[in-house]
Amino acid sequence: MAENDQKTIELNELELLYDRLFPICRSITGPGLRETLAILSDYLPLESFSVKTGTKVLNWQVPQEWRINQAWLIGPDGSKIVDFKWNNLHILNYSQPVDRVLDLEELKKHLYTVPVQPEAVPYVTSYYQPRWGFCLAHHSFESLPHGEYHAYIDSQLIDGELNYAHAILPGESKQEILISTYVDHPSMANNELSGPITAAFLYQRLLGWPKRRFTYRFVFVPETIGTIAYLAHFGPELKEKIYSGLVLTCIGGKADLTYKLSRREDTPLDRIIRHLFSTEAISGRIRPFTPTHGSDERHYCSPGFNLPVGQLARLWGYPEYHTSLDNKELITIESLQQSVDEIEKILRLFETDGYYLNKYPYGEIKLDQYNLYPDLNSRDMSDAFINKAVKDRNQLNQLLVVLNYADGENSLLDMAEKYNYKIAELKYIVEILQEQKLLTGPFLKGEKTI
Amino acid sequence: MAENDQKTIELNELELLYDRLFPICRSITGPGLRETLAILSDYLPLESFSVKTGTKVLNWQVPQEWRINQAWLIGPDGSKIVDFKWNNLHILNYSQPVDRVLDLEELKKHLYTVPVQPEAVPYVTSYYQPRWGFCLAHHSFESLPHGEYHAYIDSQLIDGELNYAHAILPGESKQEILISTYVDHPSMANNELSGPITAAFLYQRLLGWPKRRFTYRFVFVPETIGTIAYLAHFGPELKEKIYSGLVLTCIGGKADLTYKLSRREDTPLDRIIRHLFSTEAISGRIRPFTPTHGSDERHYCSPGFNLPVGQLARLWGYPEYHTSLDNKELITIESLQQSVDEIEKILRLFETDGYYLNKYPYGEIKLDQYNLYPDLNSRDMSDAFINKAVKDRNQLNQLLVVLNYADGENSLLDMAEKYNYKIAELKYIVEILQEQKLLTGPFLKGEKTI
Amino acid sequence: MAENDQKTIELNELELLYDRLFPICRSITGPGLRETLAILSDYLPLESFSVKTGTKVLNWQVPQEWRINQAWLIGPDGSKIVDFKWNNLHILNYSQPVDRVLDLEELKKHLYTVPVQPEAVPYVTSYYQPRWGFCLAHHSFESLPHGEYHAYIDSQLIDGELNYAHAILPGESKQEILISTYVDHPSMANNELSGPITAAFLYQRLLGWPKRRFTYRFVFVPETIGTIAYLAHFGPELKEKIYSGLVLTCIGGKADLTYKLSRREDTPLDRIIRHLFSTEAISGRIRPFTPTHGSDERHYCSPGFNLPVGQLARLWGYPEYHTSLDNKELITIESLQQSVDEIEKILRLFETDGYYLNKYPYGEIKLDQYNLYPDLNSRDMSDAFINKAVKDRNQLNQLLVVLNYADGENSLLDMAEKYNYKIAELKYIVEILQEQKLLTGPFLKGEKTI
Repeated sequence: MAENDQKTIELNELELLYDRLFPICRSITGPGLRETLAILSDYLPLESFSVKTGTKVLNWQVPQEWRINQAWLIGPDGSKIVDFKWNNLHILNYSQPVDRVLDLEELKKHLYTVPVQPEAVPYVTSYYQPRWGFCLAHHSFESLPHGEYHAYIDSQLIDGELNYAHAILPGESKQEILISTYVDHPSMANNELSGPITAAFLYQRLLGWPKRRFTYRFVFVPETIGTIAYLAHFGPELKEKIYSGLVLTCIGGKADLTYKLSRREDTPLDRIIRHLFSTEAISGRIRPFTPTHGSDERHYCSPGFNLPVGQLARLWGYPEYHTSLDNKELITIESLQQSVDEIEKILRLFETDGYYLNKYPYGEIKLDQYNLYPDLNSRDMSDAFINKAVKDRNQLNQLLVVLNYADGENSLLDMAEKYNYKIAELKYIVEILQEQKLLTGPFLKGEKTI
Repeated sequence: MAENDQKTIELNELELLYDRLFPICRSITGPGLRETLAILSDYLPLESFSVKTGTKVLNWQVPQEWRINQAWLIGPDGSKIVDFKWNNLHILNYSQPVDRVLDLEELKKHLYTVPVQPEAVPYVTSYYQPRWGFCLAHHSFESLPHGEYHAYIDSQLIDGELNYAHAILPGESKQEILISTYVDHPSMANNELSGPITAAFLYQRLLGWPKRRFTYRFVFVPETIGTIAYLAHFGPELKEKIYSGLVLTCIGGKADLTYKLSRREDTPLDRIIRHLFSTEAISGRIRPFTPTHGSDERHYCSPGFNLPVGQLARLWGYPEYHTSLDNKELITIESLQQSVDEIEKILRLFETDGYYLNKYPYGEIKLDQYNLYPDLNSRDMSDAFINKAVKDRNQLNQLLVVLNYADGENSLLDMAEKYNYKIAELKYIVEILQEQKLLTGPFLKGEKTI
Repeated sequence: MAENDQKTIELNELELLYDRLFPICRSITGPGLRETLAILSDYLPLESFSVKTGTKVLNWQVPQEWRINQAWLIGPDGSKIVDFKWNNLHILNYSQPVDRVLDLEELKKHLYTVPVQPEAVPYVTSYYQPRWGFCLAHHSFESLPHGEYHAYIDSQLIDGELNYAHAILPGESKQEILISTYVDHPSMANNELSGPITAAFLYQRLLGWPKRRFTYRFVFVPETIGTIAYLAHFGPELKEKIYSGLVLTCIGGKADLTYKLSRREDTPLDRIIRHLFSTEAISGRIRPFTPTHGSDERHYCSPGFNLPVGQLARLWGYPEYHTSLDNKELITIESLQQSVDEIEKILRLFETDGYYLNKYPYGEIKLDQYNLYPDLNSRDMSDAFINKAVKDRNQLNQLLVVLNYADGENSLLDMAEKYNYKIAELKYIVEILQEQKLLTGPFLKGEKTI
């Protein structure tokens, strides 16, 4: 099947998953969260876990589970102002139940809008402070007449559980690459269906690779409290196994990738993504690490764990953020596929990076024996590379660089950066040299030296 | 009592001490030195030490003690050209006794002037080469008539002692901050009454602090030979205890502070003073370390000791240096108070700097529990910080930075520099966090980690 | 004898050696190589070694030995086109024997020229791929008439040996400085008689020094395969003994020196040559290390050996390279003497560089005791340095710098670079201080500290 056809099929599948997930009213707990994990299980073999309400997790505690059936606000003339059925954003996420008649002034304390975007319904949450409320477009809010309103929210806060899931895709090494995303946001596209959808399809791509050097851990959690719960349980295991990792957030939209460095600022993924952006192999921009903003990398990168985890985003700091305007038209399904493509490219090159060993490190290798060097020494080198595995002087130079620095102390990326090569070019050189059994690796730092 | 009143009272006390010390004829040994230490004892509890003439101290030897009673030069017409009573600078410091009649040509070999400042009486010393001589204004020198002069100096060089003193102000830690100044210069203001007066009043300020993290050692010595003698005795103890230190010299005058780095160039005081100057918390300028010029830091920073000691000065490299023009009008008493203020500010922030530990380093802390985080997540954060201990998003960011890097491996100054905060701002954040028992410290580098 | 006369005598001797070596038909094996080593033995006590054909050396194998007696090409009219006697470059180096009559079209497959330099005879080799051929000026090639040609090469490829030699010039330390050059190139001047001739005369200069701190190892090998064979035998010894080293190549011609850094990029020679170039003590330019081009430093700097060896060249990347135009007029004998001068200067300063110890490191030394400091302290210092060993304030500063940093952890070069001094100036200061027994050294890094 042609690659283009495959791409088109995948695009349709991406849209199908999007359309299944979008309408669900997700939160950090509850039926919407469980339904979301169940749908994702069609795409990758998720193992699910639950943590009971009240369980202490690190410095936090699992809250009561939130369930909502229906909710609406009726105006003085009996017409519906908002209805949960129209858009689940209309209800303050984690809203207490309410069934009250009250006048406009009293009601306004429970209404949330975005005055600067009068047509947008905002997404507002109050997980840990009991509140009830409705979210609506500011122009609706402004035209509310005086009079009696009936506020009705049929929700429950009960002792239940918090749910999360992960899938482990094994590779040659037990060292793991973490891909973490979150599944608690209700009907918004970029923030945050882009992450879980991209992660699910990325899994399928990696599954298709002929071999994987690393093991891949895909984590789907409610943001913040879910990650806290995940770390409370799996933290020690992650400290032992995670070689590098990514949090995916806001990974859709018509914008270049941006990458927030890990707290360590020089992990293997930090370095290779910086290289790929700076050599324009992928269009993107590096952001510094900061604990002040961002997503779940703040917990992975808390000082006790200090895991080598960065964060990858696309559309970020955008006006439609946390409103009903964050929808499929804004992000486009094509941008999700682009994210899958670009992350796969990063990981493919990442798997080649590492520390190699020249098998004959004493003196330069007699390369003409391996069809890798001209056998006539003359100033006219026009025919020198005919029928050679290296096609020109530039490739020969790259090969000499790789052999000289394949000492277990300089990574392939170190070589690329020192000599201004692209790591994708050196990947080809590594393949030639391994075919001739002149190179072993890749190894991890310090694993083997001459 | 209002702060302004306290300031005025202190200013009067500074001037009183200045006026008591100025007239004394000090030298590296002798009665003037002892009288000076006795007066300073009224301001801080000095412990005094003496070293006998002839004692070997490091590569040096304590010289004979110099005493002077009176001295004058009478001209051909019987009138006095100079008199020790008028100004003790008129006599070459450490001058041998003399009682000779001699003609102008012979006399000139014993006269010292500053041709480019014809009204200035220079300060000249000859401690280790026997000489006698007079110092006078160059315009007086030029008008000396031919004829017979009577040179009379009633001085003695006898086997006596060299004196120095120190005061130890204890703190919670046995680690010490050294404040070293010198007390051998005769009647000049900036160089050098500014150092001992500033040190004496700084002691009183630190005494008033509710607590001191470090112990403070105030050292008063004759320059060079006194420091050599001090190090001969206390050197090993200093190597063990000194955490950081300052030599005070030329610390008066209408000029910004300048700080000469220690030989190590990155001691805790080097770094915090650089930070305070570069963030304009204090107006000042950094000078590099050099062994070629300066004061007693050259001995503290000799390669065998290599103590973490820098040097703080104000008016420095000035035309009135080492002349009778270096007087109270030049420096002003207000500038001495400014030095006390600024050094106290440095030390106050210095005591807060150090390595902290986040008590809940695994995952981000649930800050709303401690009234440190908004409890509603909405795009409109206008009310979010009402009644919170952090007053705005910027302070919340600072708090998140401090918690994330409070791992025992990043000092408060490291955080300030990495995120372009001022250390005085982070001091406030530390206080909030310690009140909530979320942070322990400060510790020394490597003392504790997660 | 005046220095100028000595220079002239040496210049004549340099030319004499050049004229003896130039005509010989050298290759990587064979009689020409042996004759060259024999002639060089008149200048330094070479110890010669041989390695039999077929011997495995690292990743290589010693090839058959090449011998050539005579060779010519006769044209259709019976006249000689080229003759080995005219210029040994006319015969493809390592040419198989041939005695064939063939037409022009067939012959052309065996002819080598440089079209862009029509008057130049190129230097072409085929050591490891059996070929026969002639090299000639492109304008001769273009005027060859159609017809029958007689190609005659009386050469042999027999089981013989590969030869190389070295001379060890002992010094106080067993640590060695390597000077390596190659002796396999036939009649060309810069590449490569410049290296062996410069090395031979450099040996004589070093022999004349009153003392040598280091031992010097002079190596004369056929390029590449000879160095490989040398390393196969002496590699472990070199790894143990070589402190720093130089490959000499293309070291003649009217151009400034250029220095290619070692693979380590900060060896002692890397650093001092960079200093001498940057302070313009010697005119020159630094080139980065690269394994892609260059000479035998590629083998010394292969990852298994990683020896601290750089490469020094003068005329480099020049149009006459590897042709008959690379001759005595191009390089001039004077340029060889300049290379000897400049390398000797480098090594002389290199021997002074190192780590010193101040014998009285506690406090500043009382320098007036040693006639190194003024004994009167006055603002007028005009007479202060009369009869002192330091002639002015600048030299006194240099002396204070050397004493302060003579702690076994800062090299003389570190001091020069930190304070923007020239190392030749500090050499004088070291001599003054050692005369007064105030300084010991030089030591190697880490050998001794306070």
